[in-house]
Amino acid sequence: MSFAEKVSERFKVIQDTICAAIEKADAKAKFHEDLWSREGGGGGRTRVLQNGGVIEKGGVNFSAVHGTLPDKISRALGLDASAFFATGVSIVMHPNHPKVPIIHMNIRYFETEGNEQGEKKRWFGGGIDLTPHYIVPEQASWFHGALKQVCDRYDVEYYPKFKNWADDYFYIEHREETRGVGGIFFDRLSPSKEKSIEELLEFVVAVGEAFAPIYTHLIQLNKDLPYTKEEKEWQIVRRGRYVEFNLVYDKGTKFGLDTKGRIESILMSLPLEAGWPYDFKIEEQSEEAFTKEHLKKGIDWINYNKV
Amino acid sequence: MSFAEKVSERFKVIQDTICAAIEKADAKAKFHEDLWSREGGGGGRTRVLQNGGVIEKGGVNFSAVHGTLPDKISRALGLDASAFFATGVSIVMHPNHPKVPIIHMNIRYFETEGNEQGEKKRWFGGGIDLTPHYIVPEQASWFHGALKQVCDRYDVEYYPKFKNWADDYFYIEHREETRGVGGIFFDRLSPSKEKSIEELLEFVVAVGEAFAPIYTHLIQLNKDLPYTKEEKEWQIVRRGRYVEFNLVYDKGTKFGLDTKGRIESILMSLPLEAGWPYDFKIEEQSEEAFTKEHLKKGIDWINYNKV
Repeated sequence: MSFAEKVSERFKVIQDTICAAIEKADAKAKFHEDLWSREGGGGGRTRVLQNGGVIEKGGVNFSAVHGTLPDKISRALGLDASAFFATGVSIVMHPNHPKVPIIHMNIRYFETEGNEQGEKKRWFGGGIDLTPHYIVPEQASWFHGALKQVCDRYDVEYYPKFKNWADDYFYIEHREETRGVGGIFFDRLSPSKEKSIEELLEFVVAVGEAFAPIYTHLIQLNKDLPYTKEEKEWQIVRRGRYVEFNLVYDKGTKFGLDTKGRIESILMSLPLEAGWPYDFKIEEQSEEAFTKEHLKKGIDWINYNKV
Repeated sequence: MSFAEKVSERFKVIQDTICAAIEKADAKAKFHEDLWSREGGGGGRTRVLQNGGVIEKGGVNFSAVHGTLPDKISRALGLDASAFFATGVSIVMHPNHPKVPIIHMNIRYFETEGNEQGEKKRWFGGGIDLTPHYIVPEQASWFHGALKQVCDRYDVEYYPKFKNWADDYFYIEHREETRGVGGIFFDRLSPSKEKSIEELLEFVVAVGEAFAPIYTHLIQLNKDLPYTKEEKEWQIVRRGRYVEFNLVYDKGTKFGLDTKGRIESILMSLPLEAGWPYDFKIEEQSEEAFTKEHLKKGIDWINYNKV
């Protein structure tokens, strides 16, 4: 089995495990699976759960595709070969309840076939980030702590570096606000003197395995809280921002659209319902204002309550 | 008064006339006006009507801005000067009723301050396009006929050229579908031997003046028709596509975001509510299927029913 196939098999197991955990936490709906193949090569297993007990719309997508990259993308990636293989797991969960956060996780592996000198480029990327409709510092802190624990098992430099990377990546430039409370984001993790490709795989798998326990814990904390009609409206507005990020800035979405991926799998990240009331006003001192004020880069969430 | 100021004044009158006509047709809500100024220079009058009798969310935006273009945009426009003036009226109407179409209109004038040789570049752009949630060929045909009449008064070559341009411009590449039934779109209309800048202004003003009678007619035809819960769902899906076009492809939106325009004015084009149900299925032979099949380029709407 090639290394690429091995990565792909590990990723499939992660998809299975996560789907089982989410179905258990949702306690109502089941994932619907669509198997698809891509004209240019490869395919995937898209699993979407809709109108659940906890999840309004959530997708757990596995794909393993290969083929030839459009020139535009080859150039953007600085590659001298255009034959590629890419595999990954992508998740976005939009809950019913405005106090349950939106979450996103992605792990991916990419390699080129090798140029004329036989040099292959290969790397991992990924991350987990949290978008609470209402930011609760204790939970943001716990979330970042859990991610730090995973990172620290592999490299103590990972968490601080990948935390900042997430702040920069999940940023809605035109709104001058972050998508949520961030998390970790990394890209182009290639083998080096310090880390073999196998070690990198173990780290990325650990990120994937951290997803279900983290999210199910956050679900349990919040899913039975009461909420108001106004809080539901705010959720719809916050989902609008999520759509803005994904359609305007997200590189994964752009890559998918540019490589003629399966549209419904790429855009499974978009919510069942979002909205753009004109110039939505929030009250001073409100929980919405608190959230808005904390949609910024550079917050040390882990130590937030210790200051 | 400079030519630029003159254009700007004519555009303001168009904004006023359209707002009055839409309020009359809506018969319930009034436009809310926000005056704003832009840090880099200039400002605008954004007028939005929400939760009306006919219009769920509609914006009629006037702006006249000046300043220095970001290099990225200067280059993209092929300009050798970066000081610019731009004025325009932009409209998007999202109606409550799924049988009333979404409509968009834009007229704009752009000029540079002139390069070292004193050469000024200046041009008009604009268009009107219709996005029915349900395509009704008779109405698409009438709509295109009305646009052709306006164009023909100025140049018989305009309509066929600008109709094709709209087909190409209002295209959702990743869905392989047009945004709606198109209309007319034009850009970089500069003075030439055949047409003075004043003649071009008259044409563009005529496009602006055509908007209100066209849209109010389409409102009257459809606003009292019965509709079902399923048709309302389809409307939400179709609005999702509208959001995809505006955030992924629309050049006006990109220009606004890149030049740090007022976000709420730029994104007034987005609906109060949109949605992305996963892999939404439509029944064969249904009205939804008919619409989907007609979201394509190159349909000769004017002669559609005569074939």
